[in-house]
Amino acid sequence: MLKVYGDVYSGNCYKLRLLLSQLEIPHVWQHVDILGRETHTDAFLARNPNGKIPVLELDNGAGGREFLAESGAILHYLAAGTPLIPTDRLAHARMLQWMFFEQYSHEPYVAVARYIVRYLGRPADKEAVLQQKMAPGYRALDVMEQQLAREDFFAGGHYSLADIALYGYTHVAEEGSFELQRYPAIRAWLARVQAQPGYVGMD
Amino acid sequence: MLKVYGDVYSGNCYKLRLLLSQLEIPHVWQHVDILGRETHTDAFLARNPNGKIPVLELDNGAGGREFLAESGAILHYLAAGTPLIPTDRLAHARMLQWMFFEQYSHEPYVAVARYIVRYLGRPADKEAVLQQKMAPGYRALDVMEQQLAREDFFAGGHYSLADIALYGYTHVAEEGSFELQRYPAIRAWLARVQAQPGYVGMD
Repeated sequence: MLKVYGDVYSGNCYKLRLLLSQLEIPHVWQHVDILGRETHTDAFLARNPNGKIPVLELDNGAGGREFLAESGAILHYLAAGTPLIPTDRLAHARMLQWMFFEQYSHEPYVAVARYIVRYLGRPADKEAVLQQKMAPGYRALDVMEQQLAREDFFAGGHYSLADIALYGYTHVAEEGSFELQRYPAIRAWLARVQAQPGYVGMD
Repeated sequence: MLKVYGDVYSGNCYKLRLLLSQLEIPHVWQHVDILGRETHTDAFLARNPNGKIPVLELDNGAGGREFLAESGAILHYLAAGTPLIPTDRLAHARMLQWMFFEQYSHEPYVAVARYIVRYLGRPADKEAVLQQKMAPGYRALDVMEQQLAREDFFAGGHYSLADIALYGYTHVAEEGSFELQRYPAIRAWLARVQAQPGYVGMD
């Protein structure tokens, strides 16, 4: 049985929960307490030396276990052979483009702002860091809006892992104090994702 | 003819140059001046609204042009069907794990430290930012060292895009003031990458 180590309120982990629901993949969810620093125990670091969730545990087919880290890589593993990964070479690369964009230009701002507001309770000594996240976070949302004003989804003309990856933190961006009402195309896309079969919310 | 928009001294762009050399892919290299903010002109933003290099320009087969951004996605596109992408499902995901690790946990520290030292000349007003990059940069190098103490390469037991992605900034980490002599396994791996057919250095 597949096992996921994660926290469902972490967007990076929720992406897996959404995919696992949509593909109806049986699994065990093992809760990991980030604030309690459970990602820094020796047992956890043996699974992912980088000390981050999510981590996927799977049988290696030879009686042993393998661990896979990084939400984008886990999504790619789980969705192999399904319509969520385009088979066309350029569309596949386009999907990855948006997944790398999310991890480099979106998550470090949109997710970290939400972490400061929702998890840490927006303490005064983090206000300057929070403010530094806003402009680049809005730039990432602007780039998404431009794409979604032209096309319904991010890659290959249909719903793919790129949509799941970007949906993770975008749909809760307001919890990080970003105003989504500025973005009609993003809001229409959020509704399209929510209408996909097997959709499950974060709560 | 493929065209790359980039700066060969940017590690993210150099990754493509290394791959293009190893696969002997004919292409045109169009230099983009980052410090001159050429990535923020209207012409450039039409190619990549995210304002970053590298960007790949290719024919879409219908008389038009397509643009692909994000070094990891471009590498994946160019290397499709070659031994640089493992065909095994888990090894493929493992390769992507290290490519996402590089963009999220390595590049924002190791590459940005080098940018401050080499491109900006280590100005006094950037010293505090530089110092903030050191601990997480060393943590990323520690994670790499652990992997390379066990295996010769990052994914699937042989040289892959994960090695190219991590080599890009690791081999010039000392230009960002990181000390690589602490890392014997990384140094042995750098030599293994340099011994690959078609290898080309940054200079």
